[in-house]
Amino acid sequence: MTYRAPINDMLLSLKHGAGLQAAIAAGHYGDFDQDITSAVLEEAGKFATDVLAPLNRIGDKNGIRLADGKVTTAPGWPDAYRRWTAAGWNGVSGTEAFGGQGLPMAINAACTEIWSASNIAFGLCPLLTLSAIEALDAHGSDELKKIYLEKLISGAWTGTMQLTEPQAGSDVGALRSRAERAGDGSYRISGTKIFITYGDHDMTDNIVHFVLARLPDAPPGTKGISLFLIPKFLVNADGSLGQRNDIYPSGVEHKLGMHASPTCTMTMGDHGGAIGYLIGEENRGMLCMFTMMNQARLGVGLEGVGIADRAYQQALAFAQERKQGKANGKKGDGMDAIIAHPDVKRMLLHMRAMTAAARTICYATAVAMDIAARATDPKAKSAATVRAALLTPIAKAFSTDIGNEVTSLGVQIHGGMGFIEETGAAQHYRDARITAIYEGTNGIQSIDLVTRKLAANGGAGVWALIGELTAIVGKVEASNDPGFGTTAPKLRDALDSLERTSKWLLERLASAPNDALAGATPYLRLFGSALGGCMLAGEALAARDDSHGDPARYVTLARYFAENVAVQAGSLERTVTDSAEAVNNADLVLLAS
Amino acid sequence: MTYRAPINDMLLSLKHGAGLQAAIAAGHYGDFDQDITSAVLEEAGKFATDVLAPLNRIGDKNGIRLADGKVTTAPGWPDAYRRWTAAGWNGVSGTEAFGGQGLPMAINAACTEIWSASNIAFGLCPLLTLSAIEALDAHGSDELKKIYLEKLISGAWTGTMQLTEPQAGSDVGALRSRAERAGDGSYRISGTKIFITYGDHDMTDNIVHFVLARLPDAPPGTKGISLFLIPKFLVNADGSLGQRNDIYPSGVEHKLGMHASPTCTMTMGDHGGAIGYLIGEENRGMLCMFTMMNQARLGVGLEGVGIADRAYQQALAFAQERKQGKANGKKGDGMDAIIAHPDVKRMLLHMRAMTAAARTICYATAVAMDIAARATDPKAKSAATVRAALLTPIAKAFSTDIGNEVTSLGVQIHGGMGFIEETGAAQHYRDARITAIYEGTNGIQSIDLVTRKLAANGGAGVWALIGELTAIVGKVEASNDPGFGTTAPKLRDALDSLERTSKWLLERLASAPNDALAGATPYLRLFGSALGGCMLAGEALAARDDSHGDPARYVTLARYFAENVAVQAGSLERTVTDSAEAVNNADLVLLAS
Repeated sequence: MTYRAPINDMLLSLKHGAGLQAAIAAGHYGDFDQDITSAVLEEAGKFATDVLAPLNRIGDKNGIRLADGKVTTAPGWPDAYRRWTAAGWNGVSGTEAFGGQGLPMAINAACTEIWSASNIAFGLCPLLTLSAIEALDAHGSDELKKIYLEKLISGAWTGTMQLTEPQAGSDVGALRSRAERAGDGSYRISGTKIFITYGDHDMTDNIVHFVLARLPDAPPGTKGISLFLIPKFLVNADGSLGQRNDIYPSGVEHKLGMHASPTCTMTMGDHGGAIGYLIGEENRGMLCMFTMMNQARLGVGLEGVGIADRAYQQALAFAQERKQGKANGKKGDGMDAIIAHPDVKRMLLHMRAMTAAARTICYATAVAMDIAARATDPKAKSAATVRAALLTPIAKAFSTDIGNEVTSLGVQIHGGMGFIEETGAAQHYRDARITAIYEGTNGIQSIDLVTRKLAANGGAGVWALIGELTAIVGKVEASNDPGFGTTAPKLRDALDSLERTSKWLLERLASAPNDALAGATPYLRLFGSALGGCMLAGEALAARDDSHGDPARYVTLARYFAENVAVQAGSLERTVTDSAEAVNNADLVLLAS
Repeated sequence: MTYRAPINDMLLSLKHGAGLQAAIAAGHYGDFDQDITSAVLEEAGKFATDVLAPLNRIGDKNGIRLADGKVTTAPGWPDAYRRWTAAGWNGVSGTEAFGGQGLPMAINAACTEIWSASNIAFGLCPLLTLSAIEALDAHGSDELKKIYLEKLISGAWTGTMQLTEPQAGSDVGALRSRAERAGDGSYRISGTKIFITYGDHDMTDNIVHFVLARLPDAPPGTKGISLFLIPKFLVNADGSLGQRNDIYPSGVEHKLGMHASPTCTMTMGDHGGAIGYLIGEENRGMLCMFTMMNQARLGVGLEGVGIADRAYQQALAFAQERKQGKANGKKGDGMDAIIAHPDVKRMLLHMRAMTAAARTICYATAVAMDIAARATDPKAKSAATVRAALLTPIAKAFSTDIGNEVTSLGVQIHGGMGFIEETGAAQHYRDARITAIYEGTNGIQSIDLVTRKLAANGGAGVWALIGELTAIVGKVEASNDPGFGTTAPKLRDALDSLERTSKWLLERLASAPNDALAGATPYLRLFGSALGGCMLAGEALAARDDSHGDPARYVTLARYFAENVAVQAGSLERTVTDSAEAVNNADLVLLAS
């Protein structure tokens, strides 16, 4: 079963749900011509179908190998990577000054979904390179940029992000890797990093590692962390590759999924220390990390969207082919395709609706990031910065939770065949599982949403968003379209729940912070459900006036989401506001003998 | 990380939540002495911890091998199986006349949870033997019973259930395996079966296959299916093993989980046909299957409970050891164990509460089955038969959904380590996934609940149950225990939603069956949430008067469930009653280009 990018759905989501068209109309995208979007996505979809999707199962089956200090990827992968970079896909949103195409992040977000859907383990490599590019672009010296930026933007070299150590996972401040000043402006780094994605591979001739370490005189915690660029091979003055640097993969993990993506333990300093170059200032490494964190988190959210859509397409095809039982009210002899059974229809619709909502939330985050980066009007820029910060944890956590839920439904629809690896449904289920964990666990996203994003400026960012979403609900009501069913009242209730719960949390953040923390996860779910529901409704309204539209399709989808997902907002509100006491008393349950 | 059976929780659940004590007091268990329950569970737990749990990871890593027509299980498995049968564990609830211990099914249900928790792939083998025993006991001739029943009850020989064929999964009536009358009272069977659990193995010297096939003159569909007993080795008159029968494993599946449990393709008839003996009457095989279906489905529900508890125990231990970050309000230097963070507390409490609710629902199903089988009072017998039938699909589907959700949280709590196979959390997640599929997918359980169990006698079984649950809520209110928080109103709302939704479904079953079918899955979830919530509250009340009790622990647990899970009943009600139209219009979304 291959993958085809759902171009019409993506365009509708991007232009209307995510607000790209309005932002262009408001002038925030300068002279960007929206018309090329469709062509870019078509081409990306074609490459994904032809080259990446067929390698997905091969990568899973073959995995990667570490031998003699070198990682070898699965058959066909280096070639596919070369073709992918040759076609310019690595540089879609890269700075034009360094060879990128300078397209909006929103366009690249849609492309990222496509890479993730067709081959999530492949797409993960450039996702991390993108983060590295961002850190270097924002904080690197001109000299470092000159040597490395163009290579990273073209994808000739890939980047890694090296934060985690055995004792320092979610708590980055606990890391111990050590950097010594070499006296010539460079540094010598030693230590061990774990869980380093694409820490080594054979797809490019060099790899640029971005490594967090501590100087000997650094203060403890996150205020004593510096960021270093450490190339696998040093680069000579003429740009040619020089000596092998002292950073090696010393182990690879045997994982639940993402078998084709090498997850390495990296050892630095066994041969005198890895030569590294400071990015930004000493002890300001966390600042550099924060710069790129939003984009990386959005990228992981898009992985959730992509893998969900892949699972949906596969389940849909199976449900149309597989015949079992006779559906109620169907005439004739013989069995019906299982898609005729209402319970299977429900599962497929659920997959589709959840994926569509997550997609638009992610795309809207990218549009906000674009406006924050591109707008000339300072007010618009500032509002977009707040919006991007607010949406990022929801884009990451809600979408990856959905990735797990939807891929599980994909297995379920396949019945017994879903449990057999050959079918491929189980691979999506396995591959998706990490997305709710890496780049900050979804619990950490929820805490970020409550303690930083909601709390910023007394909740102003949330009230502004609720205002916009309420306007959409008003339009649904005004449409008088019976196809919407109870969508409008469901969404209105959901927004009311969101507003009340937000106020309750703001109050508790001040008076009883552990109560607020206890409700962080259900709050994020509530937020995503209300937000996604309104966005899908907005898309359904827009579908009437858009050539990509198919009103009956999008109205039914929005309705399903409102009546099945957004409707949960009320119970989630009560969970947040009523159950903090039970959660705070958890030790009575957990620590009893 | 090993496993320890939670004896206190199990006893409280069995005696109070599931109603064993009341049933004994009412005389339904004859002279059964409840006091031995605790000793049996302690011993089972010890065996599980010492022998089965250490083999769980070994089985996953080694898997099984098929070579030369024989399946070899993982190292240590045959020996463990021999020790397990030698200790009498296979015959806990087996008929005493054939060497069983004759203990209640409720006790065996608790044991089944223990085997599943310690080693789900191991426990699956006797689970299927138990179904075979039941079919043979209820429908087999005295001659067949004499030869096979004692061996199956002791576990000297294992049983398989062979229904599925490539074109006949959920739709059993579509099977094509062929049986010819041999003229001597026996039959010759040929055909291919797939997904046959423990279809071959090296743990016993014989295997007794229970195979569905069609006679040449059989009517089409389920009315033309007969059940045959086909031994791997024929049995001589003196009980010794004779010639190898014509039934062979011809392939094994490469699966997402349960690697240690061989899932075989079985081929019959390559050498003239497998010699088989009819069980029950010709063309009445489905009746025999229905006999054993309830018990098998309960067994799978208990797998969900067991694997959830195993994942919980592992996550709890990790959360107590793993240090990351500083918890709000904690004093001192250094990081705290992650169990100090409210969001982690919430996940652990969720795992624990969901598992406890599923456990009691399963145990209550077993108690109802016991009363149905043992009670002398015809009224009690009849009510228990209705109750067992009603609870079975909930026990199966709700518990296995919970198995998937809880094992996923188990991965999440481990963070990045959860994605690494070595940790073991991922194995539980993989192993659990099949339980929502086999023995009737959870969608089929939901449809069974709505169309057969709810519909029986105008909903009488549901109204009777709601009446009992309402009485529990009344006692929670009367307790005036502030520890219950908003438990009572949450449960009352949930029961109201259950009642209204049940009535709506009954009406639609008559007027618009597809509307009822569209709501089957959310209805089962609603039912399980309301039922589980009330049962946990009942246990919390009982914990005050029981030596195994720890009121603060169980009150907090019940409260958490009510405020986080039962609270969803209202939105599930609205989903059932409002979203049938969207589901029935699904083709607008699913079949659009």
